[in-house]
Amino acid sequence: MSTEAEPLSATGRTRLRRHKERSRTDRADLYAVLDAGLICHLGVVVDGAPRVLPTTYARDGDTLYLHGSSANAGFGAGDGHEVCVTVTHFDGLVLARSVFSHSVNYRSAMVLGTAVVVRDDAERRHALRAIVEHLVPGQWDAARPPTAKEMAATSVLALSLAEASVKVRTGPPADEDGDLDLNVWAGVLPAAVSFGAPVPDPALRPDITVPGHIRRFPATRAEPPLSE
Amino acid sequence: MSTEAEPLSATGRTRLRRHKERSRTDRADLYAVLDAGLICHLGVVVDGAPRVLPTTYARDGDTLYLHGSSANAGFGAGDGHEVCVTVTHFDGLVLARSVFSHSVNYRSAMVLGTAVVVRDDAERRHALRAIVEHLVPGQWDAARPPTAKEMAATSVLALSLAEASVKVRTGPPADEDGDLDLNVWAGVLPAAVSFGAPVPDPALRPDITVPGHIRRFPATRAEPPLSE
Repeated sequence: MSTEAEPLSATGRTRLRRHKERSRTDRADLYAVLDAGLICHLGVVVDGAPRVLPTTYARDGDTLYLHGSSANAGFGAGDGHEVCVTVTHFDGLVLARSVFSHSVNYRSAMVLGTAVVVRDDAERRHALRAIVEHLVPGQWDAARPPTAKEMAATSVLALSLAEASVKVRTGPPADEDGDLDLNVWAGVLPAAVSFGAPVPDPALRPDITVPGHIRRFPATRAEPPLSE
Repeated sequence: MSTEAEPLSATGRTRLRRHKERSRTDRADLYAVLDAGLICHLGVVVDGAPRVLPTTYARDGDTLYLHGSSANAGFGAGDGHEVCVTVTHFDGLVLARSVFSHSVNYRSAMVLGTAVVVRDDAERRHALRAIVEHLVPGQWDAARPPTAKEMAATSVLALSLAEASVKVRTGPPADEDGDLDLNVWAGVLPAAVSFGAPVPDPALRPDITVPGHIRRFPATRAEPPLSE
């Protein structure tokens, strides 16, 4: 798929101005960063000021679906307006010999565009399913489906992936040559999101055991590698 | 300190419209969420559209310092303008019996206000030190300090914590009573950022061992508990 897909646009808004070596223009890398994420940060403009809201999402082809509530002001501000959705993986702290060369290892995707509230019931259900399955594969079919009333209380924003950028930093610190002999430890403190064992609801029926799709979680989640 | 500090403002912009039970108005909880974080997402407005940029930061009293580069367009857009800084901890996936009651456990802080680029050299150095020490306590004194030229290439934004909100969701799913008897597993998949063992720079001088402040990391980081 990645070889067929168009490379990422480099519009005036998404062209990197600094650390150009961190830019990834393969669309497969955009998919990889988005598909591996758990939450995104949605940026909207409310009364001329920015607002940044964390929420869940899923990618479906070249569309991003964001989960919200019909009562959420930020979601209202996104509908029909330009938004920015950023997904960031914090992969580690990069400790250099000089303070200045300290950095962070990360994978980050930024998507820009006009979001629209999904008004079609079938598409909204499709999007919700994508979000649940993105987070916990197998969970949609395991849980009770939404009623019409519940669907009406749920809001989904859709955003095209036409304009996006990806930045990735990996690897050891990049100290200046003149600093390499300093008597300072240098390296990376690698970080990742880790999941603990499932914690049953105290109200769980005692005869219900942990189903297979949860026992195998998070290995069931897509974590496609980045391109080389 | 928390008992002396003013509670969080509830302005029209920070008053929660939904899930009011998730709101925290104790300023100590704002500090706790910010101090436990590793990166934030900075929202700015560029040509009328939102832009959401991940970066590092530190809290110093009631000021938030954000790290950037002098060449970063987003930082320029923040200087003297309204910004929004959001720090989100993803604490787990909340699996309910109904799709509709699925949720995320999280701690999130949103700070609104006018950011200013720190132009005073001494304050910029103070802020940089705060950011490095926030991430890896003990690291500022271990590494080579910035030169004047390096300081000039570094940009720091300052933002007051006067207007902020905190949202926290913890605990098991909250299914409707009518769903409790369904044959569906319910509970929480707890999540946290975890750090692996330090990875030395391949270019590290072979006689340099891992210093104590890095051996003890991340236990050295402040992780103040939330209020009850």
